[in-house]
Amino acid sequence: MSDTVKYLLDESRLPKAWYNINADLPEPMAPVLHPGTKQPVGPDDLAPLFPQAVIQQEMSTEREIEIPEPVRDVYRQWRPSPLYRARRLEQALGTPARIYYKYEGVSPAGSHKPNTAIPQAFYNQQEGVKRITTETGAGQWGSSLALAGALFGLEIAVYMVKVSFNQKPYRRAFMESFGATCIASPSNTTEAGRAILAKNPDSTGSLGIAISEAVEMAVQRDDTKYALGSVLNHVLLHQTVIGLEAMEQMAMADDYPDMIIGCTGGGSNFAGIVFPFLGEQLRGGRKVDIVAVEPAACPTLTRGKFAYDFGDTGHLTPLTKMHTLGSSFVPPGFHAGGLRYHGMAPQISHLTHLGYIQPRAYHQTECFEAGLQFARAEGIIPAPEANHAVKATIDEALRCRESGEAKSILFNLCGHGNFDMQAYTDFLAGKLEDQEYDEAEGAMALSGLPSVG
Amino acid sequence: MSDTVKYLLDESRLPKAWYNINADLPEPMAPVLHPGTKQPVGPDDLAPLFPQAVIQQEMSTEREIEIPEPVRDVYRQWRPSPLYRARRLEQALGTPARIYYKYEGVSPAGSHKPNTAIPQAFYNQQEGVKRITTETGAGQWGSSLALAGALFGLEIAVYMVKVSFNQKPYRRAFMESFGATCIASPSNTTEAGRAILAKNPDSTGSLGIAISEAVEMAVQRDDTKYALGSVLNHVLLHQTVIGLEAMEQMAMADDYPDMIIGCTGGGSNFAGIVFPFLGEQLRGGRKVDIVAVEPAACPTLTRGKFAYDFGDTGHLTPLTKMHTLGSSFVPPGFHAGGLRYHGMAPQISHLTHLGYIQPRAYHQTECFEAGLQFARAEGIIPAPEANHAVKATIDEALRCRESGEAKSILFNLCGHGNFDMQAYTDFLAGKLEDQEYDEAEGAMALSGLPSVG
Repeated sequence: MSDTVKYLLDESRLPKAWYNINADLPEPMAPVLHPGTKQPVGPDDLAPLFPQAVIQQEMSTEREIEIPEPVRDVYRQWRPSPLYRARRLEQALGTPARIYYKYEGVSPAGSHKPNTAIPQAFYNQQEGVKRITTETGAGQWGSSLALAGALFGLEIAVYMVKVSFNQKPYRRAFMESFGATCIASPSNTTEAGRAILAKNPDSTGSLGIAISEAVEMAVQRDDTKYALGSVLNHVLLHQTVIGLEAMEQMAMADDYPDMIIGCTGGGSNFAGIVFPFLGEQLRGGRKVDIVAVEPAACPTLTRGKFAYDFGDTGHLTPLTKMHTLGSSFVPPGFHAGGLRYHGMAPQISHLTHLGYIQPRAYHQTECFEAGLQFARAEGIIPAPEANHAVKATIDEALRCRESGEAKSILFNLCGHGNFDMQAYTDFLAGKLEDQEYDEAEGAMALSGLPSVG
Repeated sequence: MSDTVKYLLDESRLPKAWYNINADLPEPMAPVLHPGTKQPVGPDDLAPLFPQAVIQQEMSTEREIEIPEPVRDVYRQWRPSPLYRARRLEQALGTPARIYYKYEGVSPAGSHKPNTAIPQAFYNQQEGVKRITTETGAGQWGSSLALAGALFGLEIAVYMVKVSFNQKPYRRAFMESFGATCIASPSNTTEAGRAILAKNPDSTGSLGIAISEAVEMAVQRDDTKYALGSVLNHVLLHQTVIGLEAMEQMAMADDYPDMIIGCTGGGSNFAGIVFPFLGEQLRGGRKVDIVAVEPAACPTLTRGKFAYDFGDTGHLTPLTKMHTLGSSFVPPGFHAGGLRYHGMAPQISHLTHLGYIQPRAYHQTECFEAGLQFARAEGIIPAPEANHAVKATIDEALRCRESGEAKSILFNLCGHGNFDMQAYTDFLAGKLEDQEYDEAEGAMALSGLPSVG
């Protein structure tokens, strides 16, 4: 067998519909509540934030939701994305396991994020919206929405968490190259931002704060909506194009995963690869072990509480039942910025609570080490977020070497590390330190959870 | 017609042989001369620098040279690369021209450079070499050889032009992530470097100086060879995989280019896309207009002399007949680092001299402007080098709008700009200035050309 084993789908097999796991849940999810009334929200409550098509998707229980042709048209630029067998990594590890990875770094923004940025921009444009606000942590999401905005003729304003804004000036340049505006958050352009700055002028920001700012800007103007890059049902829905392709590609390989591994921040890349396979299982099909990998310094699934909470710090968003570290929790500034969020997608939280997903946490240095081992074998430098999935995969493969088990492991390489070379520079120089979840701060943040019902 | 028009070749149609234009030249090229004796070099003269297989390719006049299976195996990771029709750009320009681009940014290093790094690493490994030295300007080549070294188990030492080493720390991190060593040039690790530093301790280096250092290190050790990322026949040969694929893809599009455009530094990406089409013409096939685009600040083809010269500043390399600005010419520090070289590939020089290639020069700000226009239409931010090809393409397309001519234009998008965001940051901030070719300095450099025969 040759070392490069790539499974490429013909363009004609680009999925025509996304997969909605809400159709197959064994128990329904807890309703989303209005932050004021604490009653279940309806479509009207969400109308200031999202276009109607998106709201319908957020609430839908249809199993298949058609991907509009103009969205498929843009997807086609880089999709179907390749699925690789990591033969060289297997050889380097001496494992009998078969390791597969789906590679989302082939998108123009370098990650899976355009999978949802494109349809969100499309639906907004269809409904006459002129401007979209959003937030970004590491910058992957903001870059993707900037790209989508350029293609659909929309203005994009991105609130970027200040620590990342300063650490990653090139992400800002990327967004601006596509004509977007990028603002360091907390900023003085919103009340939410000003309130934070009044308390702490040196605040380095958080995703929760940036969300508050972007939401506040969106609700103020009729021609402006808001877009979120993870967490919500419709976002996870759009990402299922990853797993739907992967199912076909695993069939091309004449294999089926025994285990699927993804990293989780808000949960979108994880859901993208996992949900189509998990749906199969929920409908009585083959069972698969599912591992969600998160940073030990922001251990939402492993240490958080499954409870109603706000998605943002300013408490402007609806309340969702999810695993949360508390909306006031500010994660330490580790390098996987895309995993630095206090909450988790309600769908993933629900399925973890029901026992379908096994969460696991790793420290960042062991993840970077795994990432370099992967790079030197497979030729691709993963994003720091993706390194968490790589680390868990290598651990499983080594376990297979011990046990002799020839497991089939599939993981999502959700993005490349081209924009994260400062993190690799620090790691290579021995300057990267592990950070711990602060028990005391964590307990305080959890004590502030809203009381519901 | 949909906006995304992508021509993807099936993996089975990855070329099995490279195309050697030496088989079809209307007049033979001037011989390569030994720097000491000024007599034509033989294979033995090159043996301290290159493995035998590479030397044979350098001198071969066989039309087709087989691509070894282990090389094709690595190529398969990202090849065949896509060819796109730039429909959105055509619409934005309102041109009747059909614009196509071959996209080499899909490689793990983000450019066309791995096309030759992989075979060079392979041939060295086959012949028992342990270590390869090289130089890099912008960092694309060094990154690619670092990647190839990791895949074939070779040590890689890269002399990086100091101005780029300082401007682009992330390129260094990229190389080191793959286990390579990266040294700022001029350095005190070589006599050539020490001689430069003695004269000018603040020297920011040049490709010519870095080549001298890398060559010096290679000839000192039996287990060490040297690799060059452009200019030489074998390098251009390896890059023809681009044009060979593009020919098949243009046939899929049921079209043939009236004009092919590429940027030229040392000439390798240009030759890669152009030579298979030009070979067709030289064998009596269809004629195509060929445009080589270079920076006005380093105008090798448009202002240089067609004469024997050294490839490096330290005069360690053989003498080749080429367009040159003089080996002591140090180009200003504009952002397209990959185009900052005093010489040009002898094959391209020869064919330009014979009238088959039309050279053209642009200033950098107009190229960045073109690059952003392309990005906002097509979703991909080009490398600063590639922006030169984009600029010429847009100019031609606008000319077609005037004339009403529905020309078919093909250009090589040789790399993405992910590692060049500082340049875009500067451009967006209005800080980027055009630089001119210094006539006086140029005349001085040209007056130092070696006298031959």
